[in-house]
Formats: sequence, C-alpha cells, structure tokens
Amino acid sequence: MEVELKELLNDLQSLKKSLSDPSHLALIDKMHLHAENIATLENSGPTRRSKVKDMSAEVVDSNPYSRLMALQRMGIVENYERIREFSVAIVGIGGVGSVAAEMLTRCGIGRLLLYDYDKVELANMNRLFFRPEQVGMTKTDAAVQTLSEINPDVVLESYTLNITTVEGFDTFMSSLTNKSFRPTKSGSGVDLVLSCVDNYEARMVVNQACNELNQTWMESGVSEDAVSGHIQLLIPGESACFACVPPLVVASGIDERTLKREGVCAASLPTTMGVVAGLLVQNTLKYLLKFGQVSPYLGYNALKDYFPTMEMKPNTQCSNVACLERQKEYILAKPSRDAAAKVKADKEALSAPENPVHADNEWNISVVDDNEVDGAVSRHSGVLPEGIVHELPVADEYTKPAITEIVGPADDLEELRRQLEALNAD
Amino acid sequence: MEVELKELLNDLQSLKKSLSDPSHLALIDKMHLHAENIATLENSGPTRRSKVKDMSAEVVDSNPYSRLMALQRMGIVENYERIREFSVAIVGIGGVGSVAAEMLTRCGIGRLLLYDYDKVELANMNRLFFRPEQVGMTKTDAAVQTLSEINPDVVLESYTLNITTVEGFDTFMSSLTNKSFRPTKSGSGVDLVLSCVDNYEARMVVNQACNELNQTWMESGVSEDAVSGHIQLLIPGESACFACVPPLVVASGIDERTLKREGVCAASLPTTMGVVAGLLVQNTLKYLLKFGQVSPYLGYNALKDYFPTMEMKPNTQCSNVACLERQKEYILAKPSRDAAAKVKADKEALSAPENPVHADNEWNISVVDDNEVDGAVSRHSGVLPEGIVHELPVADEYTKPAITEIVGPADDLEELRRQLEALNAD
Repeated sequence: MEVELKELLNDLQSLKKSLSDPSHLALIDKMHLHAENIATLENSGPTRRSKVKDMSAEVVDSNPYSRLMALQRMGIVENYERIREFSVAIVGIGGVGSVAAEMLTRCGIGRLLLYDYDKVELANMNRLFFRPEQVGMTKTDAAVQTLSEINPDVVLESYTLNITTVEGFDTFMSSLTNKSFRPTKSGSGVDLVLSCVDNYEARMVVNQACNELNQTWMESGVSEDAVSGHIQLLIPGESACFACVPPLVVASGIDERTLKREGVCAASLPTTMGVVAGLLVQNTLKYLLKFGQVSPYLGYNALKDYFPTMEMKPNTQCSNVACLERQKEYILAKPSRDAAAKVKADKEALSAPENPVHADNEWNISVVDDNEVDGAVSRHSGVLPEGIVHELPVADEYTKPAITEIVGPADDLEELRRQLEALNAD
Repeated sequence: MEVELKELLNDLQSLKKSLSDPSHLALIDKMHLHAENIATLENSGPTRRSKVKDMSAEVVDSNPYSRLMALQRMGIVENYERIREFSVAIVGIGGVGSVAAEMLTRCGIGRLLLYDYDKVELANMNRLFFRPEQVGMTKTDAAVQTLSEINPDVVLESYTLNITTVEGFDTFMSSLTNKSFRPTKSGSGVDLVLSCVDNYEARMVVNQACNELNQTWMESGVSEDAVSGHIQLLIPGESACFACVPPLVVASGIDERTLKREGVCAASLPTTMGVVAGLLVQNTLKYLLKFGQVSPYLGYNALKDYFPTMEMKPNTQCSNVACLERQKEYILAKPSRDAAAKVKADKEALSAPENPVHADNEWNISVVDDNEVDGAVSRHSGVLPEGIVHELPVADEYTKPAITEIVGPADDLEELRRQLEALNAD
C-alpha cells in the first residue's frame, strides 16, 4: 500500500506543477491532505493499550493486571509486582517457546530475550501463537510484533541467530551477561533461561552457556510422536546438567537430527505443546516469585495423563568441564549454605502463625496441606521412574550413570513402595 | 480510512470534469487507479491462507496439516482426517474456552459452536487468546475473527447468549440438536460439549441439557486462587452427572457467585488456564479420534505439580430426573453392550500381532506399555483421592454420597496405601 500512496502523491505533485487555476490548486491540496491522512491511518496499526506505570490491584475492567495482583491478596504470592524486575531468556520460539513467551508477556514479566533463526511457515499453524499472515517473517520478528501488541510494558529483545554457530554463541553469551536492564543484579543479566529448542545440539549449547555462567535454566521438550513431553530444572553444580545423564524423555523419541534430511516430519499437537509450555512457565513463576514447589523434573504422558517426577544429582564424572567446576563450588559453599538455611529457619519459626496455610484470608481458601498431597515419584540411583526412558541410550560423551536422589521417604516407606509396585504389576 | 478514500475519489472526479488537457486527464486516471488499489488492499485485510480441500500428509512448509497427519504415520491415530467430521460445542469463551477453541481450530476440527454473552476487557489480558485491540467486542465475535484467520477450514458458529436464561437455553438446545452439518450423525448434532464456564449455575445448565440430550460432555474448571484446576468426563447414565455429587475441585475454591457483587476479583494465570485447556482438548482428541485413554477426572495442583485422577459412578438418588432416566437406559442396555464388547474382543484377538505396541513402525518409537505406567489414583466409595475436596459441601439438592469406583487395586493394595499415607502424614 505504501508504494501506491507514494505514486499517488508524486502524481499529485506533477499535476500541481502543470496547473495554475487557483480552484484546481485548492482541490489538489485537499487531495494531498486526504492522502496524508490515509498514510497516517495506515501506519498507526491496531489500537494498542498504553503502558502502565505501576501494577495496580484495582478491580476495574480496564486494569490488565487485576487478576494477577489478586494472587497477592489471596496469599499465593507475597509480592507479585517483583515480576517486573525479572529477565527471562527463551531459546527457540517454536511450539513451546512462543507460547511460553506469550504467557510471560501476559503475566507482565520485566524483560524477555528471544532467540531463534527460523521463519514462520504454514506448517507451524497446528501449534498456538503464530498466525498465517506472519508466514515468511522470522519467528523472532513475528513474536515481537504479537507480544508488543499484547503487552507494551514488557521489554522485548530479539536475537535472530543460531546459537550453535560460533558467532551465534558469542552473541548469545554476551546478551545473557548484559546487565543494563538491572545493573544491581548479581550473577548474569538474566534470572532464568528457558530452553525450548527441538534438537540435541542446541540443548548442549544452552547447557554449556549456563554451566559457564553458573546460570539456572529450565529445559523442555516434546516427543516426535507429539504425545509426551517434559520439563527439567537445571541448577549448575546442584542438579544434573544436560551432559551428566543421557537425555531422559517420557516414552521414547527418535533421533530428530535425521528428520529434515529424509523429507519426513515429526508430529506435533497444540495440546501437548500448550501443556508443556504451561507447566514450564508455571514453574518459572514459582521459581521467580517464590511460591509452591519447583519441580526438578516433570514428565507428561498424554496417552495416559501420567506425570512422572524425579530428581537428578550431578554426575561427578560429567564430561562437561564447567559442570565439574560448578559441582566443586557447590560442595565448597555447603557450610555457608547451611548457616543461611539455619538463620532462615529460625526466623520463620519465630514469625510463623499457628495455622499458616491461608487460615485467616478473607477468601476462606484452604490450600491443601503439603503433607496430604504428594504425587512425586522418586527413585534410588540408576532406577528411573515408570514411563521415563533414556532418549539416546549411547550418548557420545556419556561415561557413568547419574545418581538420582531420594526425596524424603524413609526406608520403610521405600519398602512399602516396592510392595505397591509389585502388586500393581500383577 | 474509507471516508478519506471516498473524499479523495470525489475530488479526483470533480478535477477531471474541469480539465481538458489529455496529459492532465491521463494523470487523473493514473491517480484514480492508485486510489482504487489502495481501497482493494485495505479491504483485503491480513493475508489469509486459502481453504484446503483435503488434509494432506505431504511434508512441505506450506502444508498446515503435515504435522497432524504425521500422527497417522506414527501409529498414534488411525484416521486423523476424521476430525473434519466432528462438531464440538464450547460453552464459555474465557480463559479456558478460548484457548480450547484455538487448539481445536488449529487441529482442523470440522465445526465449532461457541457460546458466551460477555465482552472482551483489558482485565482479560492476563490470559491467552484475546488481544487488546479486541476490547469491547463480544467474546464470540472476537473469537470468530481470530479463529477464522487462523484456519478458514473450520466451520464456526457463534452464539452470543446466556445459556442460563430461558431464551438462551432454548437456543442452546436447538443449536445442539441441529444436524445440518452431518445429517447422518446419530444422537445430537454435536460430538462433544466442552463446559468452560466459571460458575456453578452455568455448569448445572450444561448438565441439564446434556442429560436431556444423552450428550457426552467434558467439564473444566480453574480455582479462584488460580493455582489449581480440573477436567471431568461426563457420560449420561454411565458416569456421575454434575448433580450426582457436590462439585469436586483440586484444593478448594470459594463461592464464585459472591465475587462480582463485592467488587473484588478472582485471581487467574495464563499458565493454569493453558494447562487445563491443553488437558481438556487433549482428552477431546483422544475421545474423538479414539487413541490413548480418556481421563474420567484429572486434577491439576499447580503448587506441587500433582495430578490426581479418579472415576465416579452415577448417584442412584440423583436429583436430576433426566440423569435417572439415562441411568435406567444404561442398565437396560447392558446385555447388548456386553455382546458388542465380546464381538470386538474376539475380532481383535484374531487380528492382533504379537507385539502390537508400535513394534514395527519405521520411527522406532516405543510407546510405554499400558501396564508399566499408571499414575491414576482411585478410591473406595466416599473416599476422595488426596488433594481433592468438595467445592460446595452443602449443595442444595445433594442427597447422598456418590459411589466412586474402584479401578484395579485389590484390598491388600488399599491397605498398603493407607499405611503409606500414615507414613507421609508424619
């Protein structure tokens, strides 16, 4: 349309030069004004909401944050507005990453860093987020277009690059360490990295970057048959890194590196990807805003609606040098960690009311007690929870089975669990 | 913009009349053409994808169904293209219903019937789907606008009405029984009703309609504290109807009927609603396309990533008369049901290969065996799974505790579970 308008304006200009009658010239000027108005209307785009300076809890239809600030009134989150301080990097803006970006944008996250090198295709339309009119745009550009319209308060940074290239990795690293958004932040420039990529190499690159930067991250994945997925929390030195264990998946996948070559494609569903994105961002919110329990690993088997969980300790023989360094640091920091935990526990013991679980909130909400609900599956070293299998049984750099941690249960409880399983297997 | 263009064309017309020089007239004609092109571009709106006659499995970037048809090649779904025959009604186009509608649209569902009476507000922007530029539109209109751009192959029917009014209920019933989309269909005109409403009254109305029509439906809900939700399958006569038992929720909610009056609002999160919508539509796909297991009840506790499941039998003392009729019919049909099941089992026994679970698919996908994965929690009569509580302990029409079904476990297993719980409670 821009071209047509420009031509029209040029023609008006040349006509004006060849005319002298004042009434003709007035008509030309009038037409010029109409054409300029059309240009202005064309450039203004859809109606946007204006930026909001402070998050308000006021219950009016025009407040985009009222339902989120209500989390504070209900005692779920202590300080929701802190979300504006946080930066989250999302690597891979596909079926999971784009939905994760939209969820965080609607939650009013402070800053999002988006990484992808791919373009939007019609073949992506079976997943949420991208629209047919965006076909041909880079996923990063299309995402920034949509997200900035949804919530102009979020600072969006777009990186159209492949992190598995040397140059891409350098830019990735420098963007993660840039602290201009919150100069007082300790550690890197971001609070969390979300890996939403669809291949092994890219995951190993995110792993390398996060190990080097001592950066906590979450990994996510969806199987090539579209009916299972998982999320995983990786804290360098404290939990297994992506190189510590062969990748784990719910049910099993195929080697996705062969897919594009053979002219076939993996299956995908907006449901599975939406669920995985939802679980990923829910755990991101729990991690950032400090409520509930962040799952160390959560699987999703869509065929049976089964959600296995577990924890994995780092592999002391891990092939990743940066991981081994982080492990050493983690062990060395144990005394100060214990001291800090004791101070916190003492403080909480002093200030805790008799019935701390939302006992006196005005909503009469009773959140179920921690001890009553625990669906977490945890296992001894080497034994994986039911339904979880190794994705790549013979990983190139794999050296030794990882140690999976026992969470909570005493020996007799474990014995009971074994009996339960034996009975279930009948 | 239309007004400006019209004025411009009028001016061109009057200028043309007062001029006679052929070069001037040629210039005017040229400008006229540009203005018409602008009008055409303006009216065409965003680039739309054209309709697709048949779903193709061809792996090209321009095929919006390649990733869905791949489900067939991978042995997950027997006949994906059947999805085009199905009609799904979604009641309530809010945080869950709108996302469910988008997922089904992207999956290429045949026909969607959308019911809501509300308008889009900025206060809805913390959930997926609606955009700030749609504020003030009815949710049904805004949904049709977005969904038709995403997938023009889906037949969209929009009902801007309140189903809890007498008139609204009549239209609701007649729309569900209209069979013009697939005249040969048995039963009602839709294959499934999804209830995505946010209040008790509306759920009871959906329940009434579905009991009267003998229509299978799925109920969904998200708690007012935004950190839990559930989905439930309701087959009239076979499983508990919504009036058979007091509503069950994960953790506990508040009486949402008081919310609007007091000028306060419930909390909500795009994550919880996205997960619930994803689980709801995943089970819808499993139900319609006959793969995996459809969950009778699936809860989601976001604070702990805990997903309780259970089954509920109908209450023989149910206050809903239509439910009692359906129960009678279900019992009367038992002999023919048993006979059909035997025929099916015999047929499958004859044709079943040795290793039926994707043993020889070209992808080397191994889907975990049914017996290995079972996270389902089931309980004896009257005892609810951990983490599930009654939403309204004193329901007006509630007469007798419902019978919850035992799935699988023997008595000694139940005893072990009790011991486990006792240990957990320490």
